[in-house]
Amino acid sequence: MTADINARKLRMVMIGGGPGSAIGGVHRRAANLDGQYDLVGGAFSTDETRTRSMGRELFLDPERVTNSWQDLLDRERALPMDRRADVVSIVTPNHLHFEQATAALRLGFHVIMDKPMTMTLDEAYRLRDTVRASGRIFALTHPYAAGVMIKLARDLVAQGTIGTVRRVVVEYPQGWLARRIEADNNRQALWRTDPALAGSGCVGDIGTHAANLSETVTGMRVVSVSADVGTVVEGRRLDDDFSVHARWENGARGSIQASQIAAGEGNGLSIRVYGTDAGLEWRHDRQDFLYVRHQQKPWEKYARGTEYVAAISPAAARVTRTDQYHPEGYIEEFANICLNAAAAIRAVESGRQPTALELDFPNVHDGIRGMAFIQATLQSSRTASAWVEVEGGPGAE
Amino acid sequence: MTADINARKLRMVMIGGGPGSAIGGVHRRAANLDGQYDLVGGAFSTDETRTRSMGRELFLDPERVTNSWQDLLDRERALPMDRRADVVSIVTPNHLHFEQATAALRLGFHVIMDKPMTMTLDEAYRLRDTVRASGRIFALTHPYAAGVMIKLARDLVAQGTIGTVRRVVVEYPQGWLARRIEADNNRQALWRTDPALAGSGCVGDIGTHAANLSETVTGMRVVSVSADVGTVVEGRRLDDDFSVHARWENGARGSIQASQIAAGEGNGLSIRVYGTDAGLEWRHDRQDFLYVRHQQKPWEKYARGTEYVAAISPAAARVTRTDQYHPEGYIEEFANICLNAAAAIRAVESGRQPTALELDFPNVHDGIRGMAFIQATLQSSRTASAWVEVEGGPGAE
Amino acid sequence: MTADINARKLRMVMIGGGPGSAIGGVHRRAANLDGQYDLVGGAFSTDETRTRSMGRELFLDPERVTNSWQDLLDRERALPMDRRADVVSIVTPNHLHFEQATAALRLGFHVIMDKPMTMTLDEAYRLRDTVRASGRIFALTHPYAAGVMIKLARDLVAQGTIGTVRRVVVEYPQGWLARRIEADNNRQALWRTDPALAGSGCVGDIGTHAANLSETVTGMRVVSVSADVGTVVEGRRLDDDFSVHARWENGARGSIQASQIAAGEGNGLSIRVYGTDAGLEWRHDRQDFLYVRHQQKPWEKYARGTEYVAAISPAAARVTRTDQYHPEGYIEEFANICLNAAAAIRAVESGRQPTALELDFPNVHDGIRGMAFIQATLQSSRTASAWVEVEGGPGAE
Amino acid sequence: MTADINARKLRMVMIGGGPGSAIGGVHRRAANLDGQYDLVGGAFSTDETRTRSMGRELFLDPERVTNSWQDLLDRERALPMDRRADVVSIVTPNHLHFEQATAALRLGFHVIMDKPMTMTLDEAYRLRDTVRASGRIFALTHPYAAGVMIKLARDLVAQGTIGTVRRVVVEYPQGWLARRIEADNNRQALWRTDPALAGSGCVGDIGTHAANLSETVTGMRVVSVSADVGTVVEGRRLDDDFSVHARWENGARGSIQASQIAAGEGNGLSIRVYGTDAGLEWRHDRQDFLYVRHQQKPWEKYARGTEYVAAISPAAARVTRTDQYHPEGYIEEFANICLNAAAAIRAVESGRQPTALELDFPNVHDGIRGMAFIQATLQSSRTASAWVEVEGGPGAE
Repeated sequence: MTADINARKLRMVMIGGGPGSAIGGVHRRAANLDGQYDLVGGAFSTDETRTRSMGRELFLDPERVTNSWQDLLDRERALPMDRRADVVSIVTPNHLHFEQATAALRLGFHVIMDKPMTMTLDEAYRLRDTVRASGRIFALTHPYAAGVMIKLARDLVAQGTIGTVRRVVVEYPQGWLARRIEADNNRQALWRTDPALAGSGCVGDIGTHAANLSETVTGMRVVSVSADVGTVVEGRRLDDDFSVHARWENGARGSIQASQIAAGEGNGLSIRVYGTDAGLEWRHDRQDFLYVRHQQKPWEKYARGTEYVAAISPAAARVTRTDQYHPEGYIEEFANICLNAAAAIRAVESGRQPTALELDFPNVHDGIRGMAFIQATLQSSRTASAWVEVEGGPGAE
Repeated sequence: MTADINARKLRMVMIGGGPGSAIGGVHRRAANLDGQYDLVGGAFSTDETRTRSMGRELFLDPERVTNSWQDLLDRERALPMDRRADVVSIVTPNHLHFEQATAALRLGFHVIMDKPMTMTLDEAYRLRDTVRASGRIFALTHPYAAGVMIKLARDLVAQGTIGTVRRVVVEYPQGWLARRIEADNNRQALWRTDPALAGSGCVGDIGTHAANLSETVTGMRVVSVSADVGTVVEGRRLDDDFSVHARWENGARGSIQASQIAAGEGNGLSIRVYGTDAGLEWRHDRQDFLYVRHQQKPWEKYARGTEYVAAISPAAARVTRTDQYHPEGYIEEFANICLNAAAAIRAVESGRQPTALELDFPNVHDGIRGMAFIQATLQSSRTASAWVEVEGGPGAE
Repeated sequence: MTADINARKLRMVMIGGGPGSAIGGVHRRAANLDGQYDLVGGAFSTDETRTRSMGRELFLDPERVTNSWQDLLDRERALPMDRRADVVSIVTPNHLHFEQATAALRLGFHVIMDKPMTMTLDEAYRLRDTVRASGRIFALTHPYAAGVMIKLARDLVAQGTIGTVRRVVVEYPQGWLARRIEADNNRQALWRTDPALAGSGCVGDIGTHAANLSETVTGMRVVSVSADVGTVVEGRRLDDDFSVHARWENGARGSIQASQIAAGEGNGLSIRVYGTDAGLEWRHDRQDFLYVRHQQKPWEKYARGTEYVAAISPAAARVTRTDQYHPEGYIEEFANICLNAAAAIRAVESGRQPTALELDFPNVHDGIRGMAFIQATLQSSRTASAWVEVEGGPGAE
Repeated sequence: MTADINARKLRMVMIGGGPGSAIGGVHRRAANLDGQYDLVGGAFSTDETRTRSMGRELFLDPERVTNSWQDLLDRERALPMDRRADVVSIVTPNHLHFEQATAALRLGFHVIMDKPMTMTLDEAYRLRDTVRASGRIFALTHPYAAGVMIKLARDLVAQGTIGTVRRVVVEYPQGWLARRIEADNNRQALWRTDPALAGSGCVGDIGTHAANLSETVTGMRVVSVSADVGTVVEGRRLDDDFSVHARWENGARGSIQASQIAAGEGNGLSIRVYGTDAGLEWRHDRQDFLYVRHQQKPWEKYARGTEYVAAISPAAARVTRTDQYHPEGYIEEFANICLNAAAAIRAVESGRQPTALELDFPNVHDGIRGMAFIQATLQSSRTASAWVEVEGGPGAE
């Protein structure tokens, strides 16, 4: 691509995210926020009318809007370097991820994609190989794990602030599937509860966020699980509720739980990590804060946007947009991934190895970890909560 | 005892609760609070000097203070009816509970005792038989389950406010055993981590509170568990951390967790119950409130001391001491047990069957349930988290 | 009184607190809690039937129950030293306080009395003189100011933790008088909105708590006010809502507000004090915690019942009953006054000067301050919020 | 401008917001977020190097970047219609607002400008006249008042949910000026404490937000104030702390307070409005929620992104970007103004009157109200808190 990569916005095209999609708008706003990307085209829907409608709403050149993702990639590939898209944003249902990401990477595009990464662990390994071979940037949107205070939490744990990690508790209750709304043709529910489109239900959709969050904050992989996975709502075709007992690499014990039938809950993700000296807690509904609890001195509440957070965590400082105590939200978490990915893409395009801070976003290895977590969890539950090892560590790769 | 039972305070003697005991002072204050009991004697410690010192501090008649609990019961028994104790409060380490309670009941005293009830499930069944044979009142101090808002929660669930219960999450993190303080001769830690004195560790000490709370609120027994119990602190002789996957009677799924090594935590008991229509949450650190969360209308926060709570739950109203929004605390939870037990004792002594509201306190059946939970949880964990049925239901009795 | 004062409970009689009284039960439970007092008699109501009924409910000797407070004091005075009451608890409407307290003190009784202390500032000065002349202990029940975490706050401020105090904000919203419930014969509302019985409304009933709290925490008097006092509910005879701009002794600025018509509020007392280095906050609905906020390091949350609080504040430690994070409540705040007053009474009766820690409860000087605050606030409001000095400092005494 | 206004992004240029500006980045991200604006040029700084540097960072055409705002406007004016800017974003210190906005409007540009609007109330009236004469859209960035839950609060009040408004409490504590950081050349502090550049200090900078919030939520003007304004930090040249007693149009009473020296506070804006039936509360640090408190039923917590909020408030629904319980933040509040202003601009440019929902953002009348509030507050404080009427109602215009 062009040598002027650092003098212009990155050009992005999107696959998926048509009218009615929740996550498409989030990806677009996250890419817009910091002025690093320009959305120039898309295959928003396989329906011609719907994809055109979305293109108009986004003020796009009709020439770069189509109802076929293959067509989109081919057309962009055919454009001259100074017009061609740099990045493909993939926000389709899970069963399409593997094929679309593979194609985009092989055509030389960088990719920002929604999770879970693939339908199987085997696909995940193969996608990892494709990423490596392509030399392209691949970002996976685990937005919570990319939050400012999660970066702080990770860095505090790494710096020894809470001592050696011994217990981890991650919970992710949601209530939106408390009733069988897929039977009412709820668009989201329809595909997310369809085995052919989603692969797994609660474990894949939000369990992977929970597991990924624990690995991000502790810096350790989940190595084994004893799981209890269930489908609570009658007639549903995928799991909608689970708990696992877990072990992390250093032997730390704990629990990962998620539910989509926790009536009344919105999006209640939280994590607590207890070390030998102190515990920390982060909750998505107070995402600008991190709570550190000491046994024999006052509890601490760290606030995003402060100088002392910046001093502890350059990674947190790098993606902090507003002054102390002006709340940021979910879109900003997403945008953190886009912002760092943009820097990494610019580095690669400039022929330079991105720095660790530029590469501080979830990637293909997080995707492998997610698929391994799904596989082990479902297997354990099928075998009466027997303990199962979670594949996908550095050795497995 | 005397016919004037309704014209005087109940006379109480205490076994245990000597200098340095935390729970002795709580039991005494709980008994004092509502003016229903008069502490008249005690065997506070097996050490003569210590028991005497406590007797003086409590302004007691030295004739009714001794270092032997058998001696205490014998002396009281020998007193004339119009001076003799009505109730024995037992606040000793667990291994003494069975023998002391059995003796007190057989001598005709009512008993208010700390939990866990016994050292084994078998003892629990035998104590149940003794209670039945004695016709005496037996109260077990699960204070959290006796809280005003827990009574409200139970009554809301029973009235169908949240629909059919489908998911239950109880957590109880504490941090006080994060270090091996028993090695520093910490008085509490010494006996609570000693297998001979405590029987079980985290599961028995606080896991039983958590399980009992779930059974109280849902009105259903825990019927099976897949457990992960561990000893985190090196050199410790009992478990200090656990999680269980659980099922309740109607098939509801969920999780019960507790830890004593969750550094930074105080006494973080909480419960969430999700039904088909809504979820509810109670947290011990905000014990005056109950949160009810609807899926499609604003979340609700119920406050203790209000007229609407009284209208929903006569059991809650009965033990509400202060007006709206004047906080009550842990001692008041304890005192709720004492207050209802006093009414039940007065009924029994007056030759009348106590009402359901008067009997609204944890009893010997809760004690059986606690021992059954401990036994099943430890067995499951020993067998690699295999699912184990929890004994102790009506059938088992 | 008898030489064995330290070997027995203190004997208390109560004036007021008959059936239906809210505050009578609170005073009784607060006196019961720590086992320092024995309620032995009372003039609970001027109605013979009602006072007798309350006496029976409290298991009292009918000989020591009467419907006349003068009669009560005379009878007690006539009893032999080893039976006579030590303390009179006064929980009547405000217009009776001055006469009853004066009489009790002159007869040699110690007094624990509800606030506001008198009907006028002049009476307050005269009662102060009577207290001095009597040599008796006089405690005024500002319970919030006697809370554990307020003692901690006061000691932190005195130790310079937040620097020099510059801004103070106290708020006390209640909603119970949002409607004109005195017209429905609500018992509490009837006397509290009657000028002849209550003297002042919102300013006297809860404004004095708010002002007292600010003086307790800062260690400084409110020296001037610009007030806006109003009666919001049509037909009401006393004020039910006010705000004042205020100055404290060192020139610190700030605001004191209270309302009884803040519909939806329970008992929302809170205080924030900002110094040159940090700010602190305490809220009655989270009374076990104190929040200290630094400008350039994490915010701190102090918890009652911890060793670090005990190390900072011996006064807080002295009235701490339960371990870390077991909540205490409103009754315990009240009981803190009773507990320290008991120690002070025992000291005086033993011929010894009470220590500063024993005397750590609101007293007649707080009562004077309260009346001065009421007087200045009402005067300022009558003169279009002109600034008015608040009398009642050491000089004025 | 061009007829294709609805088929393209709006072109924006910015005055102010150079390197180191906090608010410039917020305005840019807010304009970016929803993909309605394209930043095409700017006069970011009067320093040539600094303005160029910012232009490059934003990937702008150097031809449209200058160090002179007059030059910027002239150049844009000279461009053909299909390239020319539509909107000027003004984020300079206060003393420049009047002249810059006037010039931009007269040249035919729409304006989005930071508050306070002008230096004097007279200028505010004159700017109002210029807006009217221009037929252009003028938006004033009071972001808090544009938040989703504030729109809900306003609509709930208007629909009578809390009854007739009787008491209003707005607080806005900040701590960033607790020390005299202007003496350390802190960029923000330097101009915000300079009378020539800022006009007023705490009253103008954050007091206007607080007053505006109260007017937005209640739908009533502040009609009179009794104020206490001070400069706490020695050597500071403008006010940094104030309280006012206030009256709203219907006689409702209450208080507006703000401080910049409240050490430890971040950006603690909150509002409570009490009606005859219930009270509501909103806090900026939990901006996704609205608390409605009833006197005799459970308190309610409304959550942004829910269907029930959308049903109550179309204005809230219109600016809701994410599903239930995915937090939004400060930038999104700002972006709400940009989003509605874009719709209004498109309407005007299409020759159509914008709808009420499109015009739902703070405008020149809010600017007048802000200046009137500053003027009355300062005058009242200078006259010993005498009550002063606040100009600027419909009559005054």
